[in-house]
Amino acid sequence: MLGNFSYCNPTRLYFGKGAVENLRTELGHYGKNILLVYGGGSIKKNGIYDQVVSILKACGKNVTEDAGVMPNPTTEKLAEGIARARACKADLILAVGGGSVCDYAKAVSVSVHCDEDPWEKYFIRFEEPTCAIVPVACVLTMVGTGSEMNGGSVITNHAQKLKIGHVFGTEVFPKFSILDPTYTFTLPHYQMVSGIYDIFNHICEQYFSGTDDNTSDYLSEGLMRSLIHSSRIANKDPENYEARSNIMWTATWALNTLVAMGKDTDWEVHMLGQAVGAHTNATHGMTLAAVSMAYYRHILPYGLQKFRRFAVNVWGVREEDKSDEQIAAEGLAAMEAWMKELGLVMNLTELGVREEMIEGLVKSTLVMQTGYKVLDTDEIRAIFKESL
Amino acid sequence: MLGNFSYCNPTRLYFGKGAVENLRTELGHYGKNILLVYGGGSIKKNGIYDQVVSILKACGKNVTEDAGVMPNPTTEKLAEGIARARACKADLILAVGGGSVCDYAKAVSVSVHCDEDPWEKYFIRFEEPTCAIVPVACVLTMVGTGSEMNGGSVITNHAQKLKIGHVFGTEVFPKFSILDPTYTFTLPHYQMVSGIYDIFNHICEQYFSGTDDNTSDYLSEGLMRSLIHSSRIANKDPENYEARSNIMWTATWALNTLVAMGKDTDWEVHMLGQAVGAHTNATHGMTLAAVSMAYYRHILPYGLQKFRRFAVNVWGVREEDKSDEQIAAEGLAAMEAWMKELGLVMNLTELGVREEMIEGLVKSTLVMQTGYKVLDTDEIRAIFKESL
Repeated sequence: MLGNFSYCNPTRLYFGKGAVENLRTELGHYGKNILLVYGGGSIKKNGIYDQVVSILKACGKNVTEDAGVMPNPTTEKLAEGIARARACKADLILAVGGGSVCDYAKAVSVSVHCDEDPWEKYFIRFEEPTCAIVPVACVLTMVGTGSEMNGGSVITNHAQKLKIGHVFGTEVFPKFSILDPTYTFTLPHYQMVSGIYDIFNHICEQYFSGTDDNTSDYLSEGLMRSLIHSSRIANKDPENYEARSNIMWTATWALNTLVAMGKDTDWEVHMLGQAVGAHTNATHGMTLAAVSMAYYRHILPYGLQKFRRFAVNVWGVREEDKSDEQIAAEGLAAMEAWMKELGLVMNLTELGVREEMIEGLVKSTLVMQTGYKVLDTDEIRAIFKESL
Repeated sequence: MLGNFSYCNPTRLYFGKGAVENLRTELGHYGKNILLVYGGGSIKKNGIYDQVVSILKACGKNVTEDAGVMPNPTTEKLAEGIARARACKADLILAVGGGSVCDYAKAVSVSVHCDEDPWEKYFIRFEEPTCAIVPVACVLTMVGTGSEMNGGSVITNHAQKLKIGHVFGTEVFPKFSILDPTYTFTLPHYQMVSGIYDIFNHICEQYFSGTDDNTSDYLSEGLMRSLIHSSRIANKDPENYEARSNIMWTATWALNTLVAMGKDTDWEVHMLGQAVGAHTNATHGMTLAAVSMAYYRHILPYGLQKFRRFAVNVWGVREEDKSDEQIAAEGLAAMEAWMKELGLVMNLTELGVREEMIEGLVKSTLVMQTGYKVLDTDEIRAIFKESL
């Protein structure tokens, strides 16, 4: 049954080849001071930096750069970004990059005018902003997190060995995002497939929870089928525009709140993966891939009917003369085969986890109170061990 | 391939039992003068009118009523609404009703401060508003048109025998809409199934066009499957909240622009149906149902692969040992059986069309330049005749 909810997603998206040209009109709505946020500098090699900066200059903006945002943005980097945004009196924070850069821009945006410690306020106490927010916009260069059309922001605190996400309200969503699929062409294969699995897992996290009959689950099945189909094309031919554009669009809708409306969601795979990320700094999507099969096989008996539906509706498993358990298991086997076909990292060992690190991972894992099975410590430990 | 596009849908939705209570906070964002727009008075019988008016009064608003909006709102009624909105200096137009009431509210909203003839400007010349727009909000009591989260507005000109829709930009979308599935419980069966087919056809109009591989089509398949499933439950048990809530949510997403992104769309069934509506004043969804099978069987050869996909992915038609034509035809047969199961009107005769009216219908039918086959006059005539 659809539970009560409210839905609003005001982010304006410009999608397609050359979409960056829309920056010219959008920039007219904001003041002169732009904080340009980006990552390790790949945008300087592939020409995106030059395109964006030339538009900013043509629009007469004062640009302050904040480079070096890392894949798992840290509290130390956040403090640096806040200082820069304050110093330049930023009217707009323009994030050019993937989910980490966009997540980081949102964390800066709610902290510039905040007197408290943002880590404590937003990521430990999960409070909402009580200060003015600097608007954020995004030029996306890597797909997966959906950060371009949601309020999500994940920050890592190395001192505390914690990687925590806060989902902010609509006022923190990017005002606009530029989605040009060709901007993702130069991404290494490892990053591309990692992003693809991140997308897929976002849908799974929302799909594998609840026993209601809900339109959201039908939409999720559509997104998963589209993603599986296009990922196989992109895996062989990364510059296939049709496939990459479908993947980009799927990523946005996998995590812009739509497919969670009216239903329970899980997010335990992300909690397990984020613990791994906090201890290894491994690529986010790969941390999810490495723990997924052990987790889903563990919870299958508690959500049997949904795993059966997943097998039939997403993977086309035939039902004849089979038990529910068989059908459900065939669905997960098809998913595992697809993950291997993409070349995802299917174990924690490859990500640098060793057996003696497992107690630390267990301690860093937040336990969600939803999903088909609320995990206890022994179950978390067992899933990590099985994933080695 | 996903074509270039921009997407933005800022309407805030409040969904679920008791969602009308959100009016209290939303009303705080608008001035004192409210134009309360509704239809034939059913909201006075089922208590919705009393609920809404008591909230408006508790919020200290001046309420001017504009009742009697008909199922196919006319240019004469539009003139009346404009005069009322001007007289009361409306700060907000609150539409309480179904798609017609909401469509009408939008037409009033863009006309209050417009010096030109709104029929000529918006529905003949398809111009965008160049004047101030009075904000619209909606309390939905009947589902189907998706008007609660889009810029669509359909107006009928009886003198010219034309029923024409204009899709306005985001500034005309309702600022917020209240979606309480229980508000649809008292709707007569005829209206309920008519709305269900309207939803289904909205999806078909966007699905049956283009040959690209597009995520939008996967989302459409998910929406159709959810709708077919829930419609069968609601058909037998109209007060099944789960089914009615899924139908309500599906209606919104069937026509809020999402499933049209990056692809060609058709809309010829609506053109045929609207011609019937202009000549008979029949219920919108039934006009679509009456012409659909003749239309889709006619265009099937031109879009064979899509009709094949529809059969397999939406209706679960098995592919073994069958030609593409057979599979596609079985899909349409399954759709026809479902339409009959719901009790839809499957021919124009029951809607009051007689053979001698057909030339008039042909003249009133706009021809879309998209879809799998651009119809010529003979084809339009043949489809109407076959639908008698």
